[in-house]
Amino acid sequence: MTPSTIIIKLGGGAGVDPEPLLQELPELLARGQRIVLVHGASAAANALADQAGLDRRQIQSPSGHLSRYTYPDMLEIFVAAAAGQVNKTLVADLQARGVNAVGLAGVDGRLLVAERKRAIRAVENGRQRVIRDDYSGRIREANGQALQVLLDAGFTPVVAPVALGTQGERLNVDGDRAAAAIAAALGADALIILSNVPGLLADFPDENSLIRQVTPQTLPHARAAAAGRMKRKVLAAEEAVNAGVPRAILADARVAHPVSEALSGQGTMFLG
Amino acid sequence: MTPSTIIIKLGGGAGVDPEPLLQELPELLARGQRIVLVHGASAAANALADQAGLDRRQIQSPSGHLSRYTYPDMLEIFVAAAAGQVNKTLVADLQARGVNAVGLAGVDGRLLVAERKRAIRAVENGRQRVIRDDYSGRIREANGQALQVLLDAGFTPVVAPVALGTQGERLNVDGDRAAAAIAAALGADALIILSNVPGLLADFPDENSLIRQVTPQTLPHARAAAAGRMKRKVLAAEEAVNAGVPRAILADARVAHPVSEALSGQGTMFLG
Repeated sequence: MTPSTIIIKLGGGAGVDPEPLLQELPELLARGQRIVLVHGASAAANALADQAGLDRRQIQSPSGHLSRYTYPDMLEIFVAAAAGQVNKTLVADLQARGVNAVGLAGVDGRLLVAERKRAIRAVENGRQRVIRDDYSGRIREANGQALQVLLDAGFTPVVAPVALGTQGERLNVDGDRAAAAIAAALGADALIILSNVPGLLADFPDENSLIRQVTPQTLPHARAAAAGRMKRKVLAAEEAVNAGVPRAILADARVAHPVSEALSGQGTMFLG
Repeated sequence: MTPSTIIIKLGGGAGVDPEPLLQELPELLARGQRIVLVHGASAAANALADQAGLDRRQIQSPSGHLSRYTYPDMLEIFVAAAAGQVNKTLVADLQARGVNAVGLAGVDGRLLVAERKRAIRAVENGRQRVIRDDYSGRIREANGQALQVLLDAGFTPVVAPVALGTQGERLNVDGDRAAAAIAAALGADALIILSNVPGLLADFPDENSLIRQVTPQTLPHARAAAAGRMKRKVLAAEEAVNAGVPRAILADARVAHPVSEALSGQGTMFLG
């Protein structure tokens, strides 16, 4: 048995190949699945920022997290890459495979409403400073109505992680957590987060140390095992199951049939 | 009496201020109008191309027409500016005014299907040559279904002129003609093309020489009066009325209430 509404997040990092997922999507849709594809854009945004000659410094939080410093010029580049280049390339590629895709960003139909981080504590050269011109946000609200009417009409939505700020700004938001918020808003049956690892590894990068299942009881263990970019994916999975999504799966984008593999137990499955 | 479905094209050239239109839209929607906003992106695409250090040569046709040379790197910039920056800025600005806008491009839901111009005759330094790596297209088909379901659900669609090629490519298409094709596909009551002129001028740039009405009988006169960018607007208006749209109006984007002004007889009205 397969769930009827699935939210799939495809990582936007360098080296993540969309091909296995794009090949599988028509089969999933033919079986009656309703699918929303949420994508990242970090590699495309980095390439466009380099081409435009922008400084792409990272913000390092006091706890060691790294994130994109989205100052106003960088926001323009991020929106261009995420909502323009990556979103429309995925839509055109899906259309070429017979999938009637429609690309949106979080600003569209107030799909993702976020609050801008107005003062971010950052560590630079060992010193703390406060950054006030960053345009990234924390998601506060997801409105699934536009997605629902498109799904009901037979379209497959593809979503870029550009949220609407409470002041009408466009904001860079984390794609994994955006996917989790959308999964919760749609009452999805599953959230699948695909990237270039088999799932959460107890002993990174040893792929034989895959953690197969995470329950509320083993969540502290999962959190402790997550390093780097995996921390946000664990957080997103946790947010989804806490919001009532029955299953959130961190799985491998590189294998054939990545969605079916994830649903059949490959990857790391978070249960509520 | 005002029509119920209006397609509005807002020019994307340098100096076209969206503000008067953005101010008027909430009033029009409150009166029950269904509106689709189609936008250009030329100024934004030029700025991003300059930032990215791209050569933005124009293609000059043997008959003297100028158009953007959309080679592969330029296509990426055009898509980024049109479907990313301009589209999502308009959507966020409308959301900030309480309009539940949803931004799409022509690739989404096969809204605009075009054929790539595979061999373009161009004049360069007095010599003709054939350009084979251009990604602009001629619109062959418009599918209004995604727009209809969004309009029926109370959303206001905002459309970027990036079409889907018959080979799954993304293509740069003319925004005025895109708006005409959408007006025809939706059976719209009016097409309004807004830019920084009062309409079609018999004696450009004398704004007192405005042509008020164009009928099938006076169309040759209108065609002859159109110069430069106005040629495509006249062509778009002609295509719309030929496809059954009752009125196509070339009007001024700079005045307060530009849509009401256009509908009340300001501008150049093409009748079928």
